[in-house]
Amino acid sequence: MIIDRLYEAVKDRGPVCVGLDTSSKLLPQKLRSASRLPSAILEFNRAIIDATLDVAACFKVQIAHYEALGVDGLACYRDTLAYARSKGTVVIGDIKRGDIASTGEMYAKAHFSGDFEADLVTVNPYMGSDVFAAFAPYLQTGKKGLFALVRTSNPSAGDVQDLCVVDRPLFMHIGGLVHTWGRDYRGKCGFSLIGGVVGATYREELAEIRAAFPSLFLLVPGYGAQGGGGKDVSPAFTRGNGAIVNASRSIIGAHREKPDGEKQYAEYARNAVITMREDIRQWMG
Amino acid sequence: MIIDRLYEAVKDRGPVCVGLDTSSKLLPQKLRSASRLPSAILEFNRAIIDATLDVAACFKVQIAHYEALGVDGLACYRDTLAYARSKGTVVIGDIKRGDIASTGEMYAKAHFSGDFEADLVTVNPYMGSDVFAAFAPYLQTGKKGLFALVRTSNPSAGDVQDLCVVDRPLFMHIGGLVHTWGRDYRGKCGFSLIGGVVGATYREELAEIRAAFPSLFLLVPGYGAQGGGGKDVSPAFTRGNGAIVNASRSIIGAHREKPDGEKQYAEYARNAVITMREDIRQWMG
Repeated sequence: MIIDRLYEAVKDRGPVCVGLDTSSKLLPQKLRSASRLPSAILEFNRAIIDATLDVAACFKVQIAHYEALGVDGLACYRDTLAYARSKGTVVIGDIKRGDIASTGEMYAKAHFSGDFEADLVTVNPYMGSDVFAAFAPYLQTGKKGLFALVRTSNPSAGDVQDLCVVDRPLFMHIGGLVHTWGRDYRGKCGFSLIGGVVGATYREELAEIRAAFPSLFLLVPGYGAQGGGGKDVSPAFTRGNGAIVNASRSIIGAHREKPDGEKQYAEYARNAVITMREDIRQWMG
Repeated sequence: MIIDRLYEAVKDRGPVCVGLDTSSKLLPQKLRSASRLPSAILEFNRAIIDATLDVAACFKVQIAHYEALGVDGLACYRDTLAYARSKGTVVIGDIKRGDIASTGEMYAKAHFSGDFEADLVTVNPYMGSDVFAAFAPYLQTGKKGLFALVRTSNPSAGDVQDLCVVDRPLFMHIGGLVHTWGRDYRGKCGFSLIGGVVGATYREELAEIRAAFPSLFLLVPGYGAQGGGGKDVSPAFTRGNGAIVNASRSIIGAHREKPDGEKQYAEYARNAVITMREDIRQWMG
């Protein structure tokens, strides 16, 4: 099952998820001026993937950055996913889609087959369990999985997610729903194919979710640029596994303002992954 | 302001929103076999747009159906939007995106400029007001607007949206948030640039939302194939305006099982819009 592959990857290479949120301002000047933006981004992504493959658990590609470049940008998204998957690594499509019935099925088809095929995708649960039903045929193969938004890392997440539902905040209720949906999709590692997104910026909630939903594999954004550090993400782990920690700008933008950053950008990305991994590991206990 | 354009469109041509959720099974056989699927869909969409332009308030294009066809499908999405907008009609991109900070800004850029430019888009509010902040620069021009998911039309919507938050269901709380966000973006017609999606399948909630948030323009899905009728959507209106009612399959698939449906599919779509408009109007009181 895909979640077992992810679990093994965390065990072997640590929990860092490299976020390919590649925007023009993260590209070395030389690359940016050498070719059209989507081609430059693809070249950059390939180099980052090559340089971090052996130290990262997986890659997450944020589709919005590609969508903003239109049809050519989405061709670059397609080629980035295909390149990463050809290297045998687990690839997460960060699409945050979530729709119902035939529309939901179209999103499942779009991102679990054809041009935009990823191994796991992020989903938005606001429309309820119909969102998951649309993905079910793919989950049943064991080859595909989901990360549902539970507790996001942004400042205004609480506008909705902190609302108290009877005796607990909404995000705990959503966590419970996701946990229930994932019950029939557990891998050998004990974790479910349907995981949850829980931001690094709310340490206590992270601990609360980990304790309440032990089989939920967690995708933790908000490390680095958004303010979370190794200590903040540590509650996500159970015996050093069961979570991946995503960072994007602090990895793929590590070359900026370095004298040899233009040439060595991929090397800087690799070193950033290793440093981040150490920062996380030291708090794992 | 865009919401004034939509208001005038409803006044002049009635509240029907034609949903271009075009999948292969809705195409006439002849078209389907004549060319590659994305080209056939584009030809179909153009014919539907031409035939319904003078009787429909606006068009809504569901991106999932195009995304499922990969890069070529998204080129068809781009061309469909461009064709409809070139005819001067209001076009809604049904994308249900919703993300934060730089990612949210990328979605705003993607769907309010460049290849995928629409006049309004649907957004998912689960991540809170940061979702809206990302779109703000476009809203401030008055030329772009949003429909935020409030009460969706699907069976499991209640899993999340019916949860009781203190003394009211979550969807009423979300309605209040959306209403607040839209306060600074009201058009001359009295409605805000930031509207809400409220399904036709829950008549009482629709009435409750209409009463509580009078300046929220409503996009009402769930008519026809999903079960709602003219009576069900009637509470969405204030003096015959302030809402649009979307239907897709029952309009663009009206030609199926008709002896001359192969040739006259656009005519059937047009007639379906007119019948639907009458069904809605008779209940407007």
